[in-house]
Amino acid sequence: MTTTVTTYTAEHLGPFESLLEKDFMGFHGKYFLGERLGLTGCEVSLNRLPAGKGMPFVHSHKKNEELYIVLRGSGTFFVDGEEFPIGEGSLIRVAPEGERAWRATDTEDLYFICIQAQAGSLCQATLEDGVRLPTKASWMMD
Amino acid sequence: MTTTVTTYTAEHLGPFESLLEKDFMGFHGKYFLGERLGLTGCEVSLNRLPAGKGMPFVHSHKKNEELYIVLRGSGTFFVDGEEFPIGEGSLIRVAPEGERAWRATDTEDLYFICIQAQAGSLCQATLEDGVRLPTKASWMMD
Repeated sequence: MTTTVTTYTAEHLGPFESLLEKDFMGFHGKYFLGERLGLTGCEVSLNRLPAGKGMPFVHSHKKNEELYIVLRGSGTFFVDGEEFPIGEGSLIRVAPEGERAWRATDTEDLYFICIQAQAGSLCQATLEDGVRLPTKASWMMD
Repeated sequence: MTTTVTTYTAEHLGPFESLLEKDFMGFHGKYFLGERLGLTGCEVSLNRLPAGKGMPFVHSHKKNEELYIVLRGSGTFFVDGEEFPIGEGSLIRVAPEGERAWRATDTEDLYFICIQAQAGSLCQATLEDGVRLPTKASWMMD
């Protein structure tokens, strides 16, 4: 179910276990959100890599920085010739030129989120970019 | 533990349950990654909102689009006067001008990721931006 209204788009994917049903260019468990939600500042994929599987090639990027956030499971991350273990709460920023790949361990599926955004494109965030409003949600009423 | 090398930064936060120990301007359970990891294309926060708690005010943004990804728990999302239930796998894009807030239900903590990136800043992604390389990780050797 995807609902599109002027200023927002919402989708309820449901439990992340269902990600294995998704497919991107033969990569099972890869689900891109950009086109579905109408994102214009970043591209985001939700991923569930089956146990024992790994990316079959190393890649870099032209303009985009990537951030990987591991949600569940365990695996190995490769970047610029180094390899290190990853699991829930592993956070990896990779600059465009970083050479990267990853794999799941043999015993559990690896769940992670990958965010791509153009390196250097963010000029302000959070307190500088946010605007507090007088509008009230239902739980803010007296 | 934060490790910084030229092209990447990695941190292992560990289980997301530990997020409640983090604090941002009095908001318990809010953990920003941008400065920690050196992000230049987006700002990302990991969040664990305690059961029964809600944002005390509605806000919008000046330049940044936001994407909310709900990981666990359940709650309510408010945007532009509408309210709808959220839970694992709820994905909400909000344009800068969208008026937004959220709360956790009374029975379980709400875990979510919020990504801020400048609206309109992404010019290419994935197949257009990625470059396949001859480099090999350990599991790609014959």
